[in-house]
This record gives sequence, structure tokens and C-alpha cells, in this order.
Amino acid sequence: MHLRAGMTVAELTDAMAKAGVIQGGRVGRSANIVAEIFSDPDYTTFITLTGPLCHGGLRNIFSDLIRWGYIDAVVTNGANIVGDLIEAMGHHHYVGKEDADDEALYEEGINRAYDIYFKNQTFIDLETYFYRILDEIPEEKRVNSSIHGLLREVGLRVEDENSILHVAAEKNVPIFSPGFVDCMLGIPMWMYSREKPLSLNPLKDFDLFGDIVFNAKKSGAILLGGGTPKHHTQYMHTLREGLDAAIQISSAPVADGSLSGAPLRESVSWGKLHGENLEMTATIFGEITSIFPLIIASALEKIENSRSKQM
Amino acid sequence: MHLRAGMTVAELTDAMAKAGVIQGGRVGRSANIVAEIFSDPDYTTFITLTGPLCHGGLRNIFSDLIRWGYIDAVVTNGANIVGDLIEAMGHHHYVGKEDADDEALYEEGINRAYDIYFKNQTFIDLETYFYRILDEIPEEKRVNSSIHGLLREVGLRVEDENSILHVAAEKNVPIFSPGFVDCMLGIPMWMYSREKPLSLNPLKDFDLFGDIVFNAKKSGAILLGGGTPKHHTQYMHTLREGLDAAIQISSAPVADGSLSGAPLRESVSWGKLHGENLEMTATIFGEITSIFPLIIASALEKIENSRSKQM
Amino acid sequence: MHLRAGMTVAELTDAMAKAGVIQGGRVGRSANIVAEIFSDPDYTTFITLTGPLCHGGLRNIFSDLIRWGYIDAVVTNGANIVGDLIEAMGHHHYVGKEDADDEALYEEGINRAYDIYFKNQTFIDLETYFYRILDEIPEEKRVNSSIHGLLREVGLRVEDENSILHVAAEKNVPIFSPGFVDCMLGIPMWMYSREKPLSLNPLKDFDLFGDIVFNAKKSGAILLGGGTPKHHTQYMHTLREGLDAAIQISSAPVADGSLSGAPLRESVSWGKLHGENLEMTATIFGEITSIFPLIIASALEKIENSRSKQM
Amino acid sequence: MHLRAGMTVAELTDAMAKAGVIQGGRVGRSANIVAEIFSDPDYTTFITLTGPLCHGGLRNIFSDLIRWGYIDAVVTNGANIVGDLIEAMGHHHYVGKEDADDEALYEEGINRAYDIYFKNQTFIDLETYFYRILDEIPEEKRVNSSIHGLLREVGLRVEDENSILHVAAEKNVPIFSPGFVDCMLGIPMWMYSREKPLSLNPLKDFDLFGDIVFNAKKSGAILLGGGTPKHHTQYMHTLREGLDAAIQISSAPVADGSLSGAPLRESVSWGKLHGENLEMTATIFGEITSIFPLIIASALEKIENSRSKQM
Repeated sequence: MHLRAGMTVAELTDAMAKAGVIQGGRVGRSANIVAEIFSDPDYTTFITLTGPLCHGGLRNIFSDLIRWGYIDAVVTNGANIVGDLIEAMGHHHYVGKEDADDEALYEEGINRAYDIYFKNQTFIDLETYFYRILDEIPEEKRVNSSIHGLLREVGLRVEDENSILHVAAEKNVPIFSPGFVDCMLGIPMWMYSREKPLSLNPLKDFDLFGDIVFNAKKSGAILLGGGTPKHHTQYMHTLREGLDAAIQISSAPVADGSLSGAPLRESVSWGKLHGENLEMTATIFGEITSIFPLIIASALEKIENSRSKQM
Repeated sequence: MHLRAGMTVAELTDAMAKAGVIQGGRVGRSANIVAEIFSDPDYTTFITLTGPLCHGGLRNIFSDLIRWGYIDAVVTNGANIVGDLIEAMGHHHYVGKEDADDEALYEEGINRAYDIYFKNQTFIDLETYFYRILDEIPEEKRVNSSIHGLLREVGLRVEDENSILHVAAEKNVPIFSPGFVDCMLGIPMWMYSREKPLSLNPLKDFDLFGDIVFNAKKSGAILLGGGTPKHHTQYMHTLREGLDAAIQISSAPVADGSLSGAPLRESVSWGKLHGENLEMTATIFGEITSIFPLIIASALEKIENSRSKQM
Repeated sequence: MHLRAGMTVAELTDAMAKAGVIQGGRVGRSANIVAEIFSDPDYTTFITLTGPLCHGGLRNIFSDLIRWGYIDAVVTNGANIVGDLIEAMGHHHYVGKEDADDEALYEEGINRAYDIYFKNQTFIDLETYFYRILDEIPEEKRVNSSIHGLLREVGLRVEDENSILHVAAEKNVPIFSPGFVDCMLGIPMWMYSREKPLSLNPLKDFDLFGDIVFNAKKSGAILLGGGTPKHHTQYMHTLREGLDAAIQISSAPVADGSLSGAPLRESVSWGKLHGENLEMTATIFGEITSIFPLIIASALEKIENSRSKQM
Repeated sequence: MHLRAGMTVAELTDAMAKAGVIQGGRVGRSANIVAEIFSDPDYTTFITLTGPLCHGGLRNIFSDLIRWGYIDAVVTNGANIVGDLIEAMGHHHYVGKEDADDEALYEEGINRAYDIYFKNQTFIDLETYFYRILDEIPEEKRVNSSIHGLLREVGLRVEDENSILHVAAEKNVPIFSPGFVDCMLGIPMWMYSREKPLSLNPLKDFDLFGDIVFNAKKSGAILLGGGTPKHHTQYMHTLREGLDAAIQISSAPVADGSLSGAPLRESVSWGKLHGENLEMTATIFGEITSIFPLIIASALEKIENSRSKQM
């Protein structure tokens, strides 16, 4: 491929798609697949979030995609909900060094995730902020609640136009999080539940998730990272004949046999993905923050170009 | 190091510990750390399970360790519970090839996880088996239940001396699984819950987990894999002054900033691990089924040797 | 970061640089570092090539960068020389599947490197093509020759404007390849040497490499992959006070202690990199074909923008 | 698998082989394959060394295997030759921390490779030591020499019974190292060559390597790490009908398309491995120092057991 100053993002991914091999080829193809999923109104589109993606600068990409109607359901770990709320409060993380003296950081009251630094105070404030929101939620919506139901109630009360929870609640896009209690809000929720009514019933989440999967004409997924969000989204698609299209970006290895690193074709054997549709899939082995923005910026450009042509 | 025919497993790990560097050195040190944790009655010991570990041949190691009193709490993903129950039913997985034609496998009714193959029928039978057990559990223990509470009730009804759930229930060792609904039993439980009373309240699990952590004189962890089990165990230790000792085997990369790949020292900054205790930790980058058996076999030998000397 | 249709490549990397963390942050910063190295005439710039980069579609990027005067020395494995010559002959690889039946491919006369397929005939033709070139090179330049000297003679005889060897020879940019004999031209060269005069003396390469390093006002490196090319370039910089700037993209793990995966800061301890200059470095953990084009396209745009402003 | 105190190393790997899946299964099978290769006098056996294996404590394993007649040819990077000579001089590395302040180490005169630390003085002494050996080698053996030829001359003059170079020279086992000039002896050799006669001709190495491959009844390989040693050994086997048996331990990823991470079955397509012999291969994804000692200790026990039975 030849590169030149001033080429557009889609021109770049097209050159990568044309080369066609190794991971660059998959990234190029992914831009085309995402553009097609986003353009086709028949698609119900899932996005899964694992890893510190909000903290990694991707939060606004997610909330914009939801706002623009490209995403129909979010499936996330708890950490990205925490990351979303921290920024909604007006707090931020800091850019640090990944080779740090962690004992010194502990003394300074700083928590480190790779090169992302948080002040302890952020989590103390988060607790207060979250309690205030919980207090505002009517009791009957806090008891025996589905997780997506509680997150929707929270989102309605978050005042930040860039918040994933807020935009999702406004656009009626559900946020599923099967392992939600395992996040920095877990202990606060537990404490709260000992004082005031609060209980979660994750089996209830299957009602809505099932409905969405059953009703999808076509189903597409953008799988960012592995873990519970990836598995849950694939697993729920055994309720229909599997996903019709999917891209996956994961840095997990294949060789430990975990679902996190499994290539998409493996899910064909489980009925989680249509075997005929492998051309509408791309399994990218790589790190999300360095690859996902390129794919989305390119897909947006492709959609815009396609609309311009139609006019 | 010099190797020779007939050396014992502990002699081998001692040679690795003496070399002391790269991952071999960490494996060697881990055998010593695990032997110390298992030998010291002051330790409350957690083991976390992520990845297809039961399927990978480690199931009996876990149930033996629980039986022998070395483990005080298990924190697991759902997959290992499924893997445990499949074998308890008398079903098995098959050893296959990781480079398979997944469409052909789908047609044959075979599900593949890397080189581990399952027949569809296994999961159909699992559903029946699990429903039968659920029916036997008194209704009041099925409603608004903690996850560990339900798993204990299940374990009491599993008739297999090698079953992790069974042995854990017998030995009163709790099995925590914050993301339990995301496993091959999730949809069956949901279906069941639409017909008969069944509901889970994962915030309730914090009561017992909190008690165990609060009451530990010393706290040690064997962290196998990343994901929710690893995070949850570390996170709950912010309720005390962190773990006192831990070994971790994970194949997740450090560089994507995820908790799964984070070295143990990172958790010092969060107060999840005593900063002074880094010598009682080992962060091993590697794959579990190829490394964990060596560490445990060596630790068992070291404990036996130490007992023999004392006599 | 917010993305939108029509953003330029440099706007995208600027957004990633602003987020600043995990690998996306490093990719963003790398575009700035490369733009600065390419813009500052004081820099002598090395590029190292490991992995099937030519085959992965990057060949023309390399030859363009050399043509445009941005690169002063190439340090490569043998495979990229083979990849360059294959395309110079007019042959090509094919895009295949990485989950292939390799026995069937062998029967069909197809060689596979991941999803890159080559016909056997390509390597047979390569031999003939290379012998013809060797025959044209005066005998005294074939005997006791440095490797870069032989590659220059070859490049002068390659008739392809996109060939790295050709453009490098024309622009007087040396191509170092300490392990050159270990490539698909190794056995052909050996066969040739049994019939006609041909011998390589890799210690001779140190003369020119040493001169370039000694004479550099500032020294910068783009390290693509690990292996011998990365080590050799870093090692030769112990002859001066180390590199002044460098970016590295490598998918090798840190945890096996190999040089391939070592972060750039490790090379500070060896005097291969100025310790003060860590801000002018970025160690990216990732795969090259999916990341390098973005960095270069952005750097080219930044250089063009900077030139426009100056006018 | 069940573990117990006092089980032998071979009992442990047999249990892993019986489980049969993921990497543990491959490690178990590898012990059997290596035992078979070592036991069958028809096998010509290659071992390849990439990564800091000598520094990682494996040096004596290699020299013992050579001494016992199990290895017929070594193919190594330069670093392991340096590591061998450092210990032959009586110097050592130190066990350090992998999260170090590299600027401080530089000031202290310490070089770091992950958690392996070397004093600068070691490399200064190495130079003197190596020059002294070179001086002892007759001039005609220093000029236009094959690399294995020079290394043999060096080995004959190394006075250390545990030295790989020494034992290999004594046992007439060649050490090939196609990229040898790229190691910490490269600049010293170059300096020496400017004062006194010294030149290497790596094409000459193909004579002996070719002979060994041509004459092998059966050919087996233990491939430790990727890089030039792995490729070169596989590549030279295109001169016959490929390897008959091989195990590989590599931590390189598959997904970047490099040879370092390629599974063994990929080499079938190239004719580097007999397609029919995949059962006599094992591709282990993992780190060498944590896995290789277990395989070798087990293989030695199996050989001993087999001999005892025959008597």
C-alpha cells in the first residue's frame, strides 16, 4: 500500500483491506463490516465492553454511537460503568507510568490500572454520588430489579450528555452487565442494601435480552474484549440461529482455551454464529484502544460517503 | 540447573527457584509460597478459577485440595461449575483438534472450545439433571438466594466424590461466582424461573464473603486466570488490608490495561495486597494447565517432607 | 474522544494521543515522534523489519519512505528481502485462511505463513531470478562481501520502482541483515557458492554501520518487530550514547525475558537509549500491519501541515 | 488428574498427557515425544535456543544433554553463546526486579534483561577473555571460517565442564548460529578483525548442516523459542523430506504471521515437516524456563524406566 499526506481514514482502511492479510487485513475488512451493520436497518447491533475502555478514551465514541442510533444493546463489565460515572461526576483519571512504585502510589492515595491513575477520593466521591442516585430511584424499582433495569434508572438521573448510561437510558438502549456486582460499586451497593431496600435479580435480565435476540431480523455484534460480556452476547444468540455478523478485537491468547481468546469461527460449532456468515466476521487479535477508533472513524466516513452518493 | 532421571517434583521446582529468573523462577518460588500458605493454619485461602480448568483436567486437583482442607473459599466463573457438573453426571469432553472445521462440527452436534469437544447431548442432559436438582431444593432456598447459597444446595445433591460442588458443600467451603448467570446454565435457570420459583440476589453473597475476609488472620490467594473471579477476590480484600500472600497464573497481556493481566504489584496501589508482602507473591505469566499441576504437586511434597521432619 | 465522518488520519491520532493511555495513547504519541524524527534534518533514522511485513502489504510504505529521504538505514530479517524480490519479479502471494489443511496445501504446492499463501513455483522462479542477478554482479563484489554490499549490488539490478532493495540502492541507503543467510535465499546462495565465487563476511558490515552511528547528530529508530534487526540496531548504538528517539511495535511478550519483547526503557540500562529521552520513545505492544500504517499516514500529514504553515 | 505428595516427575506429565487438552496436554505428550526421540538411535536430534535460556538457568540442562549424547546439533542465537561464556569465565548474572529504574541501573553500571541483571564489568571481562581465546586459535581457522567452525575452536579452549561450547566441541556436536554476529561479541569480533585476521563466512555453515540433514535416518527437533534458530532448522529440513518429530515451546503469538509463533503444522505446507508425522509433534504455547525442565526431567525418567524394564 502507498500512504500519502492527507488521505482519509477510510482510504487508509481500504488500503489495509486490499493488502488483506494478517491483522491489518482484518482491521480493513472490519471497517467495511461495521459500515454495513450500521447502514442496514435490519440489523440489531450489540456492543460488548471488556477492559478499561471508558478510561482508555473510548467513552464518547460509545455514547455517540448510541446517540446516533447505531447500537441497540450494550453488554459490559462493571468497570466501564464505573468509568462512565466517574467522568459523569466530573472526575478524571490521570495519565501515569506503567512502571510505577505501587507502594508509593498507595501512600499517596493513588490507584493504578496500567498507566491509568485514579485518586482514592474519586471512589469515595463515587460512592456518595451513587448513593444519592439510588435514593432518588423509587424503592419498587430497586427491589428484585434486573441489572439493566437498575442501570436504566441510574442513567436517567445522570446529568452528562456524554454519559453512556445517560444516553442509553434516553435512547432506550439497554445496558446488560451480568457480572455487574463485581465492580467498584459492588461493596457500596452491598452496604446500601443493608440499610435500604436494594436487590438485584440477574435472571430477570434474560427477559429483555431474550426478546431482543428473538426479534432481531439480523443480529450483529462488535465484541470488544473477552470475558463475560463477550460470552454472554454469544451465548444468548443460541436462542436464535446465531449472530449474522460480528467483529471481535481481543488481546487474549487462543492457546489457553478460554472463551476470551476464541476466534469467532469457534462459535460456529456452538450455534452462536451462522456458519455461512464467516465472511461477515473478523477476528482481530490486538488491543482495543489502538484499533477500534480507526475502524469506527472509517465506518462513519463510509456511511457518509454512501449517503452522499445516494443523494 | 542439572536434571536427572528420578528427581522428585519438589527437587525440580527447587532447581527452578534457585535459577530464580524469568517465569521458571516464579514457578519455583510459587511452590514454596503455596506450601507455606497451605501449612500455616492462620491462612484463609482463596482459589479463583477462570478459563476451562475443569475441562482441562484440573477438576480433581481442586476437589482434592478442598477435601484436604487447604481451600477456604472458591471464586469461579460459571464455566467451571458447568464443567464440574458435566463430569458429575458421568459425561465427558473429548480431546479434539484446535484446527477444526467448525461448520462440520456444528452439523455433527459437537461444540468446540479450543481442542475440547462436547456433544450437544451433554448440554441437553445437563439441563434435565440441573432441573431435577433444582426441584429437590426447597423453594425458600431458591428464592432471593445468594449465588453461593444456591451452589451449596446444588452441591449437597450432587453424587460424585470428585465433584468440586459436592466436596465444597460437604466441607462447608463456599463457592462464589458473581457472574454465574453467564454460563451454560444461565438460560436453563431463566427458563426454570419462568415456571417455578427461582431468583438470585448476588448482593447477598457479599455477606459471607465479607465475613470470611474480615475474620481472616492472614489471607492468601491462588489466582488462576483473570476475569471476574480474580477481580472479585482482590476487590473484596479492600475490606481488610489486602491479601497477605498470593500467586497468580494468567496468560492475559499486561499491555491492554485490563485487570486480568495486571501483575500483583499493581494491586498494592489499590490496597488489595499488602505492599510489604511482595515477597510472598508470584505473578506468573503463563497458561494454567501446563504450570499449576507442577506447583501443587511440589507443594504437597514439601508439606509432607516438612511433616516427616517434625515427626 | 469524539469521532466523526471525514476526520483526517492525523486528527484521529491526535485524539488518541490526547486520551494518552494504554496502547492507543502510545500510537497517538508515536505519530508525533515519527513526524519529529522525519522533520528534523539532524536525525539519522533507522527502520528495522521483522515478521512478514512486505507480504503484509507494507512494502511500498517502506520504499516510499526511503525514496522520500526519511530513512537512512534499513535493518531487516531475510524474509522481507525475499518478500521484496518476489514482488519485484512480478509474483505475488495470495490471501488464504489461517485455519488450513496444511497437508492438502503441501500436495497442492502451496506454502502458508498464517493467512499468506505462496506457490512453490514462486520460490523456484526466485532462485533463477536471483542467480541471474548474482551472475551480473562482478566477481570481486561477490567475494568476502559485506551483506549490505551484496544487497546493494542486487538492488542496483532489480527493475522495480517499488522495490525496497532498488530504491535503497539508488538512494544509497544501506540494508543491513545480520542473519540474512537464514532466509529462502540461503540454500540457493550456498548452492551458487559451490559453483561460482560467492562469500559473505558479516563482520564487514560493522564498518559502515559503525560509521553511520558514529556520525549521527541525533539517532532515531522505528523498530518493527523484535529479533535480530531490533537487537542489532540497539546494540550498535552502544557505540554512541544510545538512541535519541525510538518507537517500537512488537507483539512479543515481555515476560519471557527476550529482547524481542523488551520495552524501550529496558535498553536504557544498556546504554542503547538515552535515559533522558524517554519522552521521545513509545513502546507499543501490538501487531505491526494493523498499527504502523496509521502512524505513518498521520506523520506524513503532520509534516505536510507543518510545511504549509511555514509557507 | 489427582496429585499427591511424592509423585515422580513422569507420573505428573503422564497425568497431564491423560487430560490431553490445552497446553497441559501438549506438555504431557511432549515428554513422551522427547523420550522417544532420545531413545531411538535412528534419530538425529536438533535443539534450537532463542531467548535468554542460559541466563534463565537452563545452561547445564543443555550441556548435560549434549554430554549424554542426546543432541546431535545445536542451533542458537548469539545471546546463549554469550550466556554460556559468561558463566565459563566464572561470572554470573543477578536476580533483579523487572520493574526497575533503568536510568539508575545505567548509572550503577548494571544491564537488565527483564529480571536478569549483569554488571558492565562482565562484558568488559568477556571481551578480554574472548580475545585471549581468539589469539590462541590458529590464524587459518580464523579466516573465512564457518561460524560453527569458529565456535568449535572456541569451545575447545573453554575450560568449564558445564559449558555448552566446551562439551559440544568435545563431543563433536556442531553449534550453528546464523545470526551470531548480532550478539555482545559482535563489536568485539569486529574490533579484533581490524587488528588481526578474523572473518566469518556463514554460507560455509551450510556444508555441515546440509550433511547432517541429508544423512539423518530420522530427524527430530526441540525448538525452544522462535527467531533465526527455529527458522533455520526447519528451513534446512527442506533438503530432506522434513522433520520426523518435533516439539516447540514458543511464547510468540500466532496472529502476527511471523515464523516465531507459527504452529508446527504450518511447516507441513512448506515441506519442513512430514505431514504424516503430526502425532510426533507438539506445539506448546508458553514460556520455556517454566515448561522445558519438566519435559526433560520426565523424559529422562521415562528413558531410565524403559532401560530398567529391558534388563
